[in-house]
Amino acid sequence: MRDYLFRLPDSSGASLQTQVREMLVSAILDGHIPDGAPLPSCRRLAHQLSVSRNTVVLAYERLVEEGYLLSKERSGYFVNGDILAGRVRAAPSKDAPAAMPPDWDRRFASRPSALKHVRKPLDWERYPYPFVYGQLDPALLPIADWRECCRQALSVLEMRGWARDLIDHDDPLLVQEIRTRVLPRRGVWAEPDQILITMGAQHALYILASLLMRRDTVVGIENPGYPDARNIFSTVSDHLLPLRVDHQGLVVDEIPERCRYVFVTPSHHCPTTATLPLARREALLSRARTTDLIVIEDDYEAETNYVGEPTPALKSLDTDQRVVYVGSLSKTLAPGLRVGYMVGAADLIREARAMRRLMLRHPPTNNQRTVAHFLSAGHHDSLVRRLSHAYTARWQLMGRLLSELLPNASQPSTFGGTSFWVAGPETLDASALATLAEQHGIIIEPGEIYFAQHNAPKNYFRLGFSSIPVERIEPGLRALAGLIDGMSAAAGADHPRH
Amino acid sequence: MRDYLFRLPDSSGASLQTQVREMLVSAILDGHIPDGAPLPSCRRLAHQLSVSRNTVVLAYERLVEEGYLLSKERSGYFVNGDILAGRVRAAPSKDAPAAMPPDWDRRFASRPSALKHVRKPLDWERYPYPFVYGQLDPALLPIADWRECCRQALSVLEMRGWARDLIDHDDPLLVQEIRTRVLPRRGVWAEPDQILITMGAQHALYILASLLMRRDTVVGIENPGYPDARNIFSTVSDHLLPLRVDHQGLVVDEIPERCRYVFVTPSHHCPTTATLPLARREALLSRARTTDLIVIEDDYEAETNYVGEPTPALKSLDTDQRVVYVGSLSKTLAPGLRVGYMVGAADLIREARAMRRLMLRHPPTNNQRTVAHFLSAGHHDSLVRRLSHAYTARWQLMGRLLSELLPNASQPSTFGGTSFWVAGPETLDASALATLAEQHGIIIEPGEIYFAQHNAPKNYFRLGFSSIPVERIEPGLRALAGLIDGMSAAAGADHPRH
Repeated sequence: MRDYLFRLPDSSGASLQTQVREMLVSAILDGHIPDGAPLPSCRRLAHQLSVSRNTVVLAYERLVEEGYLLSKERSGYFVNGDILAGRVRAAPSKDAPAAMPPDWDRRFASRPSALKHVRKPLDWERYPYPFVYGQLDPALLPIADWRECCRQALSVLEMRGWARDLIDHDDPLLVQEIRTRVLPRRGVWAEPDQILITMGAQHALYILASLLMRRDTVVGIENPGYPDARNIFSTVSDHLLPLRVDHQGLVVDEIPERCRYVFVTPSHHCPTTATLPLARREALLSRARTTDLIVIEDDYEAETNYVGEPTPALKSLDTDQRVVYVGSLSKTLAPGLRVGYMVGAADLIREARAMRRLMLRHPPTNNQRTVAHFLSAGHHDSLVRRLSHAYTARWQLMGRLLSELLPNASQPSTFGGTSFWVAGPETLDASALATLAEQHGIIIEPGEIYFAQHNAPKNYFRLGFSSIPVERIEPGLRALAGLIDGMSAAAGADHPRH
Repeated sequence: MRDYLFRLPDSSGASLQTQVREMLVSAILDGHIPDGAPLPSCRRLAHQLSVSRNTVVLAYERLVEEGYLLSKERSGYFVNGDILAGRVRAAPSKDAPAAMPPDWDRRFASRPSALKHVRKPLDWERYPYPFVYGQLDPALLPIADWRECCRQALSVLEMRGWARDLIDHDDPLLVQEIRTRVLPRRGVWAEPDQILITMGAQHALYILASLLMRRDTVVGIENPGYPDARNIFSTVSDHLLPLRVDHQGLVVDEIPERCRYVFVTPSHHCPTTATLPLARREALLSRARTTDLIVIEDDYEAETNYVGEPTPALKSLDTDQRVVYVGSLSKTLAPGLRVGYMVGAADLIREARAMRRLMLRHPPTNNQRTVAHFLSAGHHDSLVRRLSHAYTARWQLMGRLLSELLPNASQPSTFGGTSFWVAGPETLDASALATLAEQHGIIIEPGEIYFAQHNAPKNYFRLGFSSIPVERIEPGLRALAGLIDGMSAAAGADHPRH
C-alpha cells in the first residue's frame, strides 16, 4: 500500500478523527485501496500520521459501523467490498467509433445565452472597492441567527417533516410567516391561497411570463429598467414596449392602451431608485381598471428607506386583484438562498402553483422551514433594522461624496435603495470607465444594459453600496472620480471643444 | 397590558429563555405591546411565567442587543419603536370601490392545473400501510450525517461563500463531487462544463423541453411512462408519440424515424421497473446516430439493484454526445431538497445554464454546499448501501407475498426499483380499489395515469415500498388482497360469467 494515501489533508477545520476518516473514505471510494485489502494497524497508522492511536481506533470503528470496513477478530481491519457494490467500474471505452455529435445550434428553440445581462465579477470580494449591486457585505450576514434556525430545522421531527416531496405544496409555516410578518409591513394582506413561494423574485417573473404571455401579448416595461425582467418577458413575447421613466419613476400617463401587462418597481425604481408618488400609483390602478391591465409589482428593497415614512406597496391599494406582487428575501437575508414569493388572485396562484409543480415541484423544504423559523423568531425584523442603519450611513456618505467629487455628474434625489444611479459627463463612456476602474480595484456597473433601445446613452453607471464596507467608500469614490477626470481630460485633448 | 400576552407557548423544544424571547418578539411585532410601552419588571414576569428571574433578565438583554427593547437606567425596559420603523401599519381600506377583477381564464396561455398527475395524500405517514412511491421511510433518513454536513456549511467562512448570488454558476465543490463520486458509479465520465445542477430531475426535463422543443417537435415517450415527463413535454410540443414498452422496457425497433427526441428510463423503466437489456441499448444508440435522434435518459433509482451486477447508464455507452443524462438525489437523500443534475454536451449545457439563469439563477447555494460535503464525506455511499439492504429485504418480501396473495395478478420479473407494477384481474378497476383501500388505511397508486391513451387499461396499479416500514408490508398486502377478492366477487355476482 502506497504511503501517500496516508497523509491528512493540509488544511481543514475538522477534527483529527474526521480527517482520518475522510482520508480513508476517499482512498476506498476512489479505488486506491482495493476490495478486501487489509488496513495498517491502528498503531502503525497513528505513528505515520502523528495522531494518537485512539483517534485511529475511533475512525476505524466508525467506518466499520458505516460499512466501509470489516473488523476481523485478531487480524485487523479490511475494506468491505459491499460498499462498492452497485458501482459501475468500467472506464470509458476508448475504441469507440468516430463521434457524430448532434448539431445543437440547429436544435435550440431559443438562445438564452445570447441575452445581455449585467456582468459582475464573481470574486468581487477580492476587489478593494466593490460598488457591486445585489450582493451583501459579509460583515452584515446574520450568521448566529441563521445557525440557530438551522439547528431548529434539523431536529428529528422537523427533518422527517421536510425531507418529503411536497409535490406542489409549500411549508404552511413559511406561508403563515410571510402573511402575518412580512406582507403586513408593506400594507399587503393576503390569504394562504393567494401566496406562492418561489425561487427568488426572478422565478416569480418567469412563472408569470410562462403562464400569462404569448408571442403577441403587449408587455410594458420601464425604460431604463430591470434587465432580467426584460430578458424573461422577451423570451415569450415579441411585443415589449419600453415605457418612459422620469425622476418620479414610471410616467403612467404614457402607458399605451394596448398594454396587457406592465412591469413596475414602484418602491425604488430599478435602476434610478426613484419612488413612484401616490398620485401616479392611483392613476396606474385606475388605468388598470379601465384598460383591463395587469400590473406586475416587483417590490424589491422595500425595506430600505432612509428619509421619511415608508411608502406602502402598490399592492396595498389594489382592490381589484389587478396587481401581482413579487418580493424576496434576497436583498436582506442572502441572495444565494433564492427565497421569494408571489401574491395575487387565488385563481392566478392556483395556475402558477401548477406551473411551478411542472418546473421543479417546490422550493427546497429545508430552506422553507429554516426561513420560517428565521421570520418567526423576529430575526428578519432585527436584521432589516441593522441593515437599514448600516445602509443609511453609507447612503449619506455616498450622497455627500458624489456631490463633492462628481459635481458635473447628476443623480436623481431619492431616499432608498442600495445604489446610486449616476449620469456622468455626456462624453463619458461608462463601459470604458468600468474596465479602467476594474484595473484599479473598483467595480462599477455601466448603465447601458438597463436601456431597451440600441442607441442607449453611454454615460450612466450604477454604484451599489450594499456590499462595500463603509470605510472603503471614500477612497473608492475618490479614485473613481480621478479616473473620470482623467478620461474627460483625454477626451478633451482628442476632441477639443469648439 | 393584558396578561394573555405573557403565556409561554404550550409545546416547544426551545429553551425557556428562547421561549420568553419569542413570546415578547411576537407581541411587539404584532403590535400588542405599543411603541415605547414599558415591560413588566423581570421579577414580575418571572413570577407570572413561573421561570427564574435570570431567564427573563437574559431574554430582555438579548432583546436590547437586537433592538427590540431599550433599557433605561433605574426605570426598566421599553419597546423600541425603531424596530417597527419601515413598517406600513395601514390595514386594508374597506371603503374601496366595487372590485372589477380580471378575467384570468381568458388570460392563461396554458392551464397547467388541468394536467393529470399522480395523486397521493400528503399525510401518507399517518396511514398504516403507505405503499406510496417516491417518498422515503423516515427511519432511513441520514439525520446525523446530514446535520454534520450542515454544521460544516454553517462556518463563518462557508456562509460568506454561499450567501452570495452566484448568478449562473454552481458550487464547484458539488460539481466536483458529482463528477468524481456520483457519475463514475454509473460509468459516466464528464467534465465540469458538461454538468448543470438542477432543482431535481424534473427541473432538468423542464429546461430541456423549454430549450429544445417547439410545437412541431416529435418527441417519443415510453408508454406506459413517467406522467411528469409527458406533462412537461406536452406543454411545448403537440407531437408526443407514445412508444411501446414490453417486459424488457422500451421496444427500440419501433421508434419512428421522425422522432427528434426520445425520453427513456433504461435503468428501471417507470413504472414497470424493467431494465433495458444491453442489446436494446446499443440499438437505441445506433438508431440515434443514424436518425439524428437525441435520447433523454432519466437514470432514476439507478442505485437500487437487488440481483446481479448493476447495469451501467445508457450514457456510459454514448460516444456521440447524443444522450442527455438526468439524475437526482431525491430517491436517496431526500426529495424535499430538490437536488438533481443534467449531463450533456458542453454546447447544450451552456444554453441550459443560460435558461436556468433566466428561470431562477441557480439552486440554493447552501444546499449545494451541504450536499457537496455529504458526498465528499462518503455519507451518500454509505446511505446507498443502507437503503439497498433495507430495500432488498422489502423487495424479496413483497415479491414472495404478491405471488402468494395475488396469484391471478401478474408483474414483470425485475430486479430493481422501489415499487412493484401489478396487473390485477382484468375486471379490476384500480381507481376504485385505491379509493376503497384508502378507507382501510392502505395507499396504492392506480396505474391508469401512466398510460398516454384515453382508453388506458384500468387494472394496473403500483405498490411503492420505499416509504412503508418492513413490518407493515405483510398485513398491508393481506388486507389489500382481501379487498381485491371482495371486489372481484362483487363484480362476479353483478356479471356472472357464462
